Amino acid sequence: MTYCVGMLLDRGLVFMSDTRTNAGIDNIATARKMHTWEVPGERVITLMTAGNLATTQTVIGLIDERTKAPEDRSPSILEAPSMFQIARAVGRTLKEVIADNAEGGAQASAATFGATMILGGQINGSEPRLFLIYPEGNFIEASADNPFFQIGEAKYGKPILVRAYDPAMSFESAIKLLLVSFDSTIKANLSVGLPLDYTTYEQDSFHFGQQGRITADDPYYQTVSNGWGEALKTAFSHLPDFSFETR
Amino acid sequence: MTYCVGMLLDRGLVFMSDTRTNAGIDNIATARKMHTWEVPGERVITLMTAGNLATTQTVIGLIDERTKAPEDRSPSILEAPSMFQIARAVGRTLKEVIADNAEGGAQASAATFGATMILGGQINGSEPRLFLIYPEGNFIEASADNPFFQIGEAKYGKPILVRAYDPAMSFESAIKLLLVSFDSTIKANLSVGLPLDYTTYEQDSFHFGQQGRITADDPYYQTVSNGWGEALKTAFSHLPDFSFETR
Repeated sequence: MTYCVGMLLDRGLVFMSDTRTNAGIDNIATARKMHTWEVPGERVITLMTAGNLATTQTVIGLIDERTKAPEDRSPSILEAPSMFQIARAVGRTLKEVIADNAEGGAQASAATFGATMILGGQINGSEPRLFLIYPEGNFIEASADNPFFQIGEAKYGKPILVRAYDPAMSFESAIKLLLVSFDSTIKANLSVGLPLDYTTYEQDSFHFGQQGRITADDPYYQTVSNGWGEALKTAFSHLPDFSFETR
Repeated sequence: MTYCVGMLLDRGLVFMSDTRTNAGIDNIATARKMHTWEVPGERVITLMTAGNLATTQTVIGLIDERTKAPEDRSPSILEAPSMFQIARAVGRTLKEVIADNAEGGAQASAATFGATMILGGQINGSEPRLFLIYPEGNFIEASADNPFFQIGEAKYGKPILVRAYDPAMSFESAIKLLLVSFDSTIKANLSVGLPLDYTTYEQDSFHFGQQGRITADDPYYQTVSNGWGEALKTAFSHLPDFSFETR
């Protein structure tokens, strides 16, 4: 599996992805699942992927090739007029790759080759936008009511996102929140693993903000991981115990 | 879905289950998923169920009928010599019911009728034991390394169990921990819902301890639910923010 989160903040967008891939539990590797394109001053695009690695790498490869061959009949994501059109193009490409892989193969269904993606970015002249793209090629958009998307092993890390997300938070707080969510997931599920990639994008800047990779020996990661465990235990001990007497 | 947890403590066993059942999202109801049998002074048995409700109710019905018809060829769980033999009997019954439901039906696979169970209890002369029973009828046992089992929607509520479980904890703390875990799940997933049933069993007492049902308007539940949300936010705000400068 995988775990990726894309988040819409008042000040822009923030993305985090793990890097573990596995084909069975005895065949694990590290692969980048966060891909970014930038036309400085004009547009920034981030795409994160979860699912079949052959599918996602093919999709990324096709998208990336088109950006370098502008005479291609399919419009490049660097030329599409809106994030909405980019979401449509990515969704169409994803659907085609899945159908292509599934077709004629022995005993393999479309689900085997499935993948889900988070797309976010901004094009000069419109707002930052964030989309969740399904293997069927269709997609939904984030909004104030639904301001973040998770793909992959999303359940373990969801409760803290639900409780602590705040649209006004700083990028520094958002990275902290994402690290807590990722750490809860990593502690509970072997298929999600360090290092973690992150990217921030400040609204109307039209170039990426901070981009980096957090490894297992990162001191800040260790502070969050240990500190959160302790903080949870303290918070838990401060809640009043259940009482059988008052029942 | 469903969420149930069974936990092995130094002082005995504690169980909690939700009560929501659904067949599609527009057909929800409340059903008891925690079933107990007791021979005072001799044995106590708790069985919690997740999965197809027709399957689990049939299994419970068969097990319960056998306890009332002792001349039946299948041994009653009230007469089995050990918790291990009870786990085998329950597993065999579960497997038979699933196979029976799946056989000959149109387009339905065994998975459709699947169910998973948590069995715990103590028989005079041996220790308290806790088992997780799979739809295939086989089972695993809890131990100091693996002291609790979850069935159903287990992922949301696992991180807090991993962090705050302590074998020496009191029943009052254990119920508190379970409520935090259930509350995190209920906040994130519509298929798990209040009220919650709980049962405690004190080792070597051979009768059930506290049994009860916690409803949505329970003041303690509301204290835990609100208090935990606040405590998480406070704990989160006390962790140092990420810093881009030191990268």
